[in-house]
Amino acid sequence: MPELPKSFLRSLASLFPGDALLTAPAETLIFGADASRRHALPCAVVRPESAEQVAELLRLAHAERVPVYPRGRGTNVVGGCVPLSGGVVVSTARLNRIQDISGEDFVAVAEPGVVTAELQEACAGKGLLYAPDPASAKFSTIGGNLSQNAGGMRAVKYGTTRDWVLGLTVALPGGRILKTGSRCHKDVAGLDLTRLFVGSEGTLGFICEATLKLLPKPEASASLLAVFAAEEDALAAARMVFAAGILPTALEFMPAEVLAGLAGLGPVPWPKGSGAALLFRIDGSAEAVSADLSRLRRAVTPARPAHLDEARTPKEEENLWEPRRQISQAAFTFGPDKLSDDIAVPRGQVGQAVRRIREIGRELGLTILAFGHLGDGNLHVNVMHDAALPGEAERALKAKEAVLELTISLGGTISGEHGVGLTKLPWLERMRGAGQVEAMRAVKAALDPHGIMNPGKGY
Amino acid sequence: MPELPKSFLRSLASLFPGDALLTAPAETLIFGADASRRHALPCAVVRPESAEQVAELLRLAHAERVPVYPRGRGTNVVGGCVPLSGGVVVSTARLNRIQDISGEDFVAVAEPGVVTAELQEACAGKGLLYAPDPASAKFSTIGGNLSQNAGGMRAVKYGTTRDWVLGLTVALPGGRILKTGSRCHKDVAGLDLTRLFVGSEGTLGFICEATLKLLPKPEASASLLAVFAAEEDALAAARMVFAAGILPTALEFMPAEVLAGLAGLGPVPWPKGSGAALLFRIDGSAEAVSADLSRLRRAVTPARPAHLDEARTPKEEENLWEPRRQISQAAFTFGPDKLSDDIAVPRGQVGQAVRRIREIGRELGLTILAFGHLGDGNLHVNVMHDAALPGEAERALKAKEAVLELTISLGGTISGEHGVGLTKLPWLERMRGAGQVEAMRAVKAALDPHGIMNPGKGY
Repeated sequence: MPELPKSFLRSLASLFPGDALLTAPAETLIFGADASRRHALPCAVVRPESAEQVAELLRLAHAERVPVYPRGRGTNVVGGCVPLSGGVVVSTARLNRIQDISGEDFVAVAEPGVVTAELQEACAGKGLLYAPDPASAKFSTIGGNLSQNAGGMRAVKYGTTRDWVLGLTVALPGGRILKTGSRCHKDVAGLDLTRLFVGSEGTLGFICEATLKLLPKPEASASLLAVFAAEEDALAAARMVFAAGILPTALEFMPAEVLAGLAGLGPVPWPKGSGAALLFRIDGSAEAVSADLSRLRRAVTPARPAHLDEARTPKEEENLWEPRRQISQAAFTFGPDKLSDDIAVPRGQVGQAVRRIREIGRELGLTILAFGHLGDGNLHVNVMHDAALPGEAERALKAKEAVLELTISLGGTISGEHGVGLTKLPWLERMRGAGQVEAMRAVKAALDPHGIMNPGKGY
Repeated sequence: MPELPKSFLRSLASLFPGDALLTAPAETLIFGADASRRHALPCAVVRPESAEQVAELLRLAHAERVPVYPRGRGTNVVGGCVPLSGGVVVSTARLNRIQDISGEDFVAVAEPGVVTAELQEACAGKGLLYAPDPASAKFSTIGGNLSQNAGGMRAVKYGTTRDWVLGLTVALPGGRILKTGSRCHKDVAGLDLTRLFVGSEGTLGFICEATLKLLPKPEASASLLAVFAAEEDALAAARMVFAAGILPTALEFMPAEVLAGLAGLGPVPWPKGSGAALLFRIDGSAEAVSADLSRLRRAVTPARPAHLDEARTPKEEENLWEPRRQISQAAFTFGPDKLSDDIAVPRGQVGQAVRRIREIGRELGLTILAFGHLGDGNLHVNVMHDAALPGEAERALKAKEAVLELTISLGGTISGEHGVGLTKLPWLERMRGAGQVEAMRAVKAALDPHGIMNPGKGY
């Protein structure tokens, strides 16, 4: 880890007084890791409270070629927050104000350190919906969600974070502050810089504030659990729901392995040996939801569900969704260690992907769980193994690589919603091709010519 | 207009045999204008049939610094298609195949010359919805819609064109072909180049193919016309609808002037002297739509509508929406000439914008109509005047400029859905600021270093 120039450190100290600057390894250590479990020690951590502070930092860092690593709550699973080359970690912890929630404009303005669920709740309190709902919403931040273009279960109906961003305040290397977009729900004046920053994994600039689009909060929601004897029946049922013109808010898929794992945790309502389950959520007005729940039941009937359970109240819904939340825990039935991945395939390829991932597991003597967001073809893949057994960690890695190869061959993507970060970087060019990666780097060079923003990540 | 180098022309002739190349002014003339009524004569017009032909053209044009102007059906109202500096107009007329509509993947693949309504209908025939629906859908093309990020009435619920693009095949200056994105509904691997091209007004590359996201086609729709005694009542009713948690597919606003103009065309069902009207459309399952239509009626009731009319069948809906379609014609009641604009303001500022635009008209002795997409704050502004009267064209221009000034002061945008093109270029920097325009140009320079793509447009 290269040290920071002395003069730069002095400037940092004056720009970030008191505990806004940390340099002692004992204090900076925990800012070196994220949920990827990778770690590198930063030279310094700063905790700005204003966009102006960030801009001044980026002026200095640009001049001195010091790497800058934006960091929210560190829930990133691909190493996006890891300060690979030392440098300065910029924490959003003190940029955590919700500045505005407007039921007139249907807009929220928030700083990057706001925890997503806090924003969701503050909006809900005013009858408004902030639609993106990544699984990490209770822990992750708006800034992190924007940087990764976070997805989540509601993406089937509402799209991903990208679709809900109207404008950004971004500090750029060199010290400029850009205000992109506006509070307008439609705005097509000039290049769409706003969405260029969304999903850029902190590689172009530092998001200091976001203007987000809100919806009227749907009055009601309801859920349906449908368990089938065979996986093909479940997939057919999902197709029939779409064919009936129903757009669920969420549509989750749990294969036989997951159902068996869940049964291992305690009593479950579905028949033993069931082939697969679907979990649907719908939302809208109370009457519409009630009508659509009946339609949903009718739509899946030809696939002969072995078990159907519906939930019409928030409490009932929470219970019905409990198994989905327990998957992580249930997975450990099949091994004490887990290699996770996040892929997406074209929606019609989900069945194929699930079957072939299972085969990969069989060939390598491992259980691989492929479950998740069927509605948008986004599957979470858990390669379960026991790293204490000789050769098993290597086989798990081999399985993970085979899954990514398969994904690319099916026209899929190596990341549906977690991003590339550090850990998936070796795969990006294999998927996107050299020309596209070159174009991405050319765009980066236009905004960050010295490559100080989150170097070694994304592309 | 600078002439094309002889050797370049020879290469064009071999690359575009027969009538795929036009150079005679009598033939190229009509490719020099668009709906902005600006005109410039191109040196040549080519009509490629493949991405490879376009790429080779861009290789040659890049080497020879020849300006290239992409062109769909020329419905652009801001001069985006006008070949300002001669060069080569590249027509998408023969890149007009729908290559795939998949009800498994919920994806359509189309070339840029496909007329939007054709794609909509082909999707509808398979029970699928291509959600973007610009008013020009029957005449404009997918390529044009993508280049301008076209909006339209359904944007309240479904967003704009940008939200429905999964991937692109783009030919770049220099001759590379990029394939961005994928058929996956979620895909966050690398910078989002796909959406960088959407709305870029043909200034970065030439879109040769688009992969678009589809939805299950909603089973039913219904509409409600609500006419109020006072404009404030109409705006209050719109607020109450959102507050009731209803998200209409479309929500259009017609002020008193428009209602009076429509009454001049023939009998209308609302009371003479009405203050403003709202037109709602909702969609979903038949039962949900029926339930939501009742809720919609209840939601607007406290605002005491003077006239309410609902439509439950396609035929009834067509009739109910007829006045909205006649606005263009009705506008000429107030003057034989029209200066149009397309602005958007934050949703809560629509009332303010409409009132102050009316005042601008009064001060200048002109009738200005501000109507349209209330649901997303996107207003169409028609400055009606008689250019034959002394000084009136100048006053109309003054009014248009005052409207744009006002828009910017309300936090609005100079273009909600039409783009900047040529005619709004003088306004972009006033709205976005020099820093942002500089950033846009830096990004362009990264992909189009010699500035051959649609020069003089956008930013």
